[in-house]
Amino acid sequence: MSDITLPPIKSVDPETIATHLFHMKELAPLVQCMTNDVVQEITANVLLAMGASPAMVITKEESAHFAAIASSVLINVGTPRPESIEAMHLAAKSANLHHVPWVLDPVAAGLLPWRDKMLKGLLALHPTAIRGNASEIRALAGVGKGGKGVDSTDSSESALQAAVSLARTHSTIVCVTGKTDYATDGQSILSCSGGSVKATFVVGTGCSLSAMVAAFIAQTEHPLEAVISACALAKRAAQQAAGVARGPGSFAVAYIDALNLIQAKDFY
Amino acid sequence: MSDITLPPIKSVDPETIATHLFHMKELAPLVQCMTNDVVQEITANVLLAMGASPAMVITKEESAHFAAIASSVLINVGTPRPESIEAMHLAAKSANLHHVPWVLDPVAAGLLPWRDKMLKGLLALHPTAIRGNASEIRALAGVGKGGKGVDSTDSSESALQAAVSLARTHSTIVCVTGKTDYATDGQSILSCSGGSVKATFVVGTGCSLSAMVAAFIAQTEHPLEAVISACALAKRAAQQAAGVARGPGSFAVAYIDALNLIQAKDFY
Amino acid sequence: MSDITLPPIKSVDPETIATHLFHMKELAPLVQCMTNDVVQEITANVLLAMGASPAMVITKEESAHFAAIASSVLINVGTPRPESIEAMHLAAKSANLHHVPWVLDPVAAGLLPWRDKMLKGLLALHPTAIRGNASEIRALAGVGKGGKGVDSTDSSESALQAAVSLARTHSTIVCVTGKTDYATDGQSILSCSGGSVKATFVVGTGCSLSAMVAAFIAQTEHPLEAVISACALAKRAAQQAAGVARGPGSFAVAYIDALNLIQAKDFY
Repeated sequence: MSDITLPPIKSVDPETIATHLFHMKELAPLVQCMTNDVVQEITANVLLAMGASPAMVITKEESAHFAAIASSVLINVGTPRPESIEAMHLAAKSANLHHVPWVLDPVAAGLLPWRDKMLKGLLALHPTAIRGNASEIRALAGVGKGGKGVDSTDSSESALQAAVSLARTHSTIVCVTGKTDYATDGQSILSCSGGSVKATFVVGTGCSLSAMVAAFIAQTEHPLEAVISACALAKRAAQQAAGVARGPGSFAVAYIDALNLIQAKDFY
Repeated sequence: MSDITLPPIKSVDPETIATHLFHMKELAPLVQCMTNDVVQEITANVLLAMGASPAMVITKEESAHFAAIASSVLINVGTPRPESIEAMHLAAKSANLHHVPWVLDPVAAGLLPWRDKMLKGLLALHPTAIRGNASEIRALAGVGKGGKGVDSTDSSESALQAAVSLARTHSTIVCVTGKTDYATDGQSILSCSGGSVKATFVVGTGCSLSAMVAAFIAQTEHPLEAVISACALAKRAAQQAAGVARGPGSFAVAYIDALNLIQAKDFY
Repeated sequence: MSDITLPPIKSVDPETIATHLFHMKELAPLVQCMTNDVVQEITANVLLAMGASPAMVITKEESAHFAAIASSVLINVGTPRPESIEAMHLAAKSANLHHVPWVLDPVAAGLLPWRDKMLKGLLALHPTAIRGNASEIRALAGVGKGGKGVDSTDSSESALQAAVSLARTHSTIVCVTGKTDYATDGQSILSCSGGSVKATFVVGTGCSLSAMVAAFIAQTEHPLEAVISACALAKRAAQQAAGVARGPGSFAVAYIDALNLIQAKDFY
């Protein structure tokens, strides 16, 4: 893997972001969220704020049924339990069967053996996209040993080789986020910078970005562009929030407000 | 059911709301909340803000014991698991035995077969009141096919026949909320309007309204009035919040503030 | 127990608080949080705001493994389930084995028989510190019958005898919080006052204080001082928040902001 020549990196252009944001708001996708215990509320509020519909349908009795009617599915393994993993498998398989895209957020990959084994199982179910920080993406690709808890200790650039490799091996889109965000399908790389370091002091900004990615890749013919457009919206909202926040409490409030207020035309 | 002649609809008067709000604040009811994963925090904060005491006692080892000493019980099936449903059954039975009122929030009724079967089981345990949106109430009454995820796709008026029918069949109070809120015991209908559409962009405003309903029906001789008074308080708080909010983030903050600040005398 | 002569009570001095706050921020401890369903988000945000790293690693498949690499562990029994209790036991034993300090938050002790029995099991695993309100500490020490749900009905002073007795019997530090906070190792008592009653209208301010205690006792040679320093930071932040808040919603936001803004030097 260390020998991969990276495809050229292209910064996503504003028209692309605007087009995908407009599409997402028009569609108002119904996003099935199977996520961790900590970020349930912010995930739902992020989706609602930007115009999507969250639905936390999580048990094995219902997850496959709902995945068939959802616009897209988010699978985040932050607080995994054996029974929730089973429900996630059922949802992923149902999503695949019904051509519903799904996103994997491999929280804390590389840190715990049981989790890494479990993540391999989910990876084998062909996620449409994967969104993680550098430590997680590197660990998922078999390089590196995970970050500090859920926080990355690597820069996003350091995971680019891993991201491209992972995308090629699993025919998926890999999105690695950090100071700059990157999305790759293995053939090309789109990037997006901006945002604010203040977002890292609020729990769930990363996890809910994966939910935004899920919302953006619903019913699109350009999933790679859709993924990086979700990142661009998050970065724009974080930048606006940072401008008015006194600390992480007011940042979180302003971030949700900004996600609601930002429109496609604001990217021109 | 389609032949039901609706009882006349009477708008709740301010004195009634004030009386019930005053009673609730005096009582400071201890509300046992068995609710979904997404809205735990906002539910607790809504109850605390308006002067009630939330207690999330949720396992089958404890739920019946606590229901016997609670002022009222909320059962919300947003993220149902087999073991939590069992705990809810035990709590509902214990509540009935000890004359403790309990409220059912049938989240996403009509959308998933397993859930609908489970809801029938809870309905058979005689809830004191049911609070849902139009899609949920219609589905629970056996009309209509559920909304889009947790969001209603019908107006609250469209569920009035269903609400009255459900109230009569199950000898319960049915509260259907939306732009206008209605509560019926099958014999009369009380209504309340106002509020703000902005509340629909914050997760848990509906679910926590069911908790407010639970708080208001504790130790009252006029449960129908109590139910619509809870709705009136929520609508008043939403209206105040909408006046100062920039988006859903600041709306949520201002809504909690308003629930805390609004007093009985403000309704005169 | 009623015959205990209390050690003299000494108010913690500002230099001590500053030293421990500085140490905690330098260390940026990785705090494993096994806490209840309601306060997951505020607990993570409180830790992030003040410069610690939260990690909600909660299943029995992972809890012991992570406790070995964490800086400290929080065990809060607010919404206990048999399987989560098992995971907590594994984490506590692993923490002990690897000399990682852990904090017990005995939510609603004294109210429910199953919970009290379960708490005895955790107490037998030698927590480094225990943080609770007066009702909980009294119940844990075998005096009193618990509060009203999760809220204390006693003043913190009323639990001082119980706290000292509990600290001696179990060779632990006991922290009882309320209008004034106290921490004792059975030999001496440190206290801290200030804060704001408004904190009691926001769910999770107590539970997240236990997480702050866990962050402060990581790698310290003066755990008693560390515990009361965590309390002092919380009280300072609450006081600042109360100065700008209109109600509990804006208080919660300002509290997180203040926890982020307050530095060691602010205590001189």
